[in-house]
Amino acid sequence: MPLPSVNFTYQCQARCSHSQARAGIFQTPHGPVETPRFMPVGTLATVKGITPAQLADTQAQMVLANTYHLHLQPGEKIIAAAGGVHKFMGWSGPMLTDSGGFQVFSLSQLRTIGEQGVLFRSPRDGRLIDMTPENSIRIQNALGADVIMAFDECPPGQGDRLMVEQATARTYRWLERCIEAHQRPGDQALFGIVQGGTYLDLRSQAAEQLIALDLPGYAIGGVSVGEAPALIDKVVQHTAPLLPAHKPRYLMGVGTYREMARAIFAGIDLFDCVIPTRFGRHGTALVQGERWNLKNATFREDHRPLDETCPCYTCQTFSRAYLNHLIRSREMLGYILLSLHNITELIRFTQSIRQAILNDTFTQDFAHWLTPPE
Amino acid sequence: MPLPSVNFTYQCQARCSHSQARAGIFQTPHGPVETPRFMPVGTLATVKGITPAQLADTQAQMVLANTYHLHLQPGEKIIAAAGGVHKFMGWSGPMLTDSGGFQVFSLSQLRTIGEQGVLFRSPRDGRLIDMTPENSIRIQNALGADVIMAFDECPPGQGDRLMVEQATARTYRWLERCIEAHQRPGDQALFGIVQGGTYLDLRSQAAEQLIALDLPGYAIGGVSVGEAPALIDKVVQHTAPLLPAHKPRYLMGVGTYREMARAIFAGIDLFDCVIPTRFGRHGTALVQGERWNLKNATFREDHRPLDETCPCYTCQTFSRAYLNHLIRSREMLGYILLSLHNITELIRFTQSIRQAILNDTFTQDFAHWLTPPE
Repeated sequence: MPLPSVNFTYQCQARCSHSQARAGIFQTPHGPVETPRFMPVGTLATVKGITPAQLADTQAQMVLANTYHLHLQPGEKIIAAAGGVHKFMGWSGPMLTDSGGFQVFSLSQLRTIGEQGVLFRSPRDGRLIDMTPENSIRIQNALGADVIMAFDECPPGQGDRLMVEQATARTYRWLERCIEAHQRPGDQALFGIVQGGTYLDLRSQAAEQLIALDLPGYAIGGVSVGEAPALIDKVVQHTAPLLPAHKPRYLMGVGTYREMARAIFAGIDLFDCVIPTRFGRHGTALVQGERWNLKNATFREDHRPLDETCPCYTCQTFSRAYLNHLIRSREMLGYILLSLHNITELIRFTQSIRQAILNDTFTQDFAHWLTPPE
Repeated sequence: MPLPSVNFTYQCQARCSHSQARAGIFQTPHGPVETPRFMPVGTLATVKGITPAQLADTQAQMVLANTYHLHLQPGEKIIAAAGGVHKFMGWSGPMLTDSGGFQVFSLSQLRTIGEQGVLFRSPRDGRLIDMTPENSIRIQNALGADVIMAFDECPPGQGDRLMVEQATARTYRWLERCIEAHQRPGDQALFGIVQGGTYLDLRSQAAEQLIALDLPGYAIGGVSVGEAPALIDKVVQHTAPLLPAHKPRYLMGVGTYREMARAIFAGIDLFDCVIPTRFGRHGTALVQGERWNLKNATFREDHRPLDETCPCYTCQTFSRAYLNHLIRSREMLGYILLSLHNITELIRFTQSIRQAILNDTFTQDFAHWLTPPE
């Protein structure tokens, strides 16, 4: 069982009068996370194309890395010898490692799933890898992120009830083993992951079981894995309010404007998504709620900044015409500058929601984003 | 004829007692260039993968862009409308545009070379492009770099004497047309390019003719185009001392340690080369005169900085193990960080030579690099 830790506290600063939304501060050994907040994804201990100095300029606080990917390359031993993932990648702020559960199930082929864990072949070199709750936690203890995630079984979004029920039950048994295996509860907070697919009663049951374990934070997993937006919303609106009010709540893998606004409405604090860098690499900018393809000819002679209200380096320094030129020329700098902007944009979106919650104007100011998906 | 300009002055600060080497300051409308100095290449108005803020951290002063590439994409009209290439790419320091001559001859297919100029098909969209001395200068006037280069005919390094003689004679006639076409002599310095292949008498003759035109600076072109290192050295040692002592001297396309040290020995001030970014993109670091392949397994668990004497962001922030991890993972950040280091390294090399010249210890301190190539 994790020892109670003074290193991880969630302090609620304001509650919305018209929703479950809240603004707060989640303290970690590497500094505070002001919530609600979007967290950039640095899968392989690098947010693609972005230096830690540039990442700090986006106002990023907590940054993700991935246990599955880092176990395969370079291996946790090398990262531990470097002094942990923060030092290895040069990020001094808070970090979170995903357990690798989602990746084992979504990326690995030739896998054998059993009660013990998952046996799979490394897509890098073909060697057999035995990923169990104990191994995932051992790796995450070696990586040393501030928040580590339970190793869970993530069924597909369209899984039938029996499959989801079994995966959810197994996720709970695996969580107990994760807690048992966790060697650094004093400086690493282990979050539990509520599964249950789109079955609300399974979500309720899973939440209840997990809450009884008194973990330092909770995540909602198994959403945005192929199901319709309306179903995601239904699950989030149902599940988030079940989670303890005095602990941080994290919705995994979600990062569109509407999904984040709706989830904050339901009481979610933390988000992660690869959208800003993936879009950046494809020449797409997120601008005030829209998606712009910067390769488009309309930008060729447009000498205005991408978004004149945006404080990011890209918007403060370059024109749409220059970005269009870089993307058309397939220049690396184009992908970098769009990624920088996109990360800044999503963080800024959650920051402005946070400010609205502090002002208690959230549901009015963000009404546009709060209509439920169809 | 260019009007005499007070905007471009070369002031010699120190001469080496044992060679032609000199340290000086070349003034431009966008600030000084302390020479000798390496100039990073930003062909398409971007040094690949590097932001202008990062570029400034490398201590870059003058930065190159390319007339041929920028004419094809996005076109000089768009860059002129942006306020010139400095504003377009966000670089406030001095800039130099190559004339496109070298690229027209080396990259274009389906070209017809005549006295008027070169007719070729754009490799981008197949349209016919008529590149003449007048057009090259018109484009460079629109781009607005501080230094612009004459449009020259660059024969292959192994060209026979007659071919080289004809190309050199044509280069001179084209230079006269460049001077005639130049519309901004007050804020853009037109440099002449001494051709002549590996025939020293042709180099002498070309230098003499060009010097009579009293241009604000001179370049040695047509080296490092396929000929042996010893031949490059022979040409540079012969030609550089022929150029006026009170004007900047630029050796085009050269950027290895030995070639730069030897050329500085002969009196060269400025260099450019794509090596630092090209090597960076291939996982190669320039470290104290050596080339290291960062993918090499010897770096996997090496937690030291790349070069502990280097002040660059890469060396100050990351380990060889992290760079090895990024390169093995084919992460963009690996190429960026190595490019940043490599640019810093070559600039630092020329800066340290400059300091040695100021101390009059150049030939002793850099004896290792001053042995002639075999």
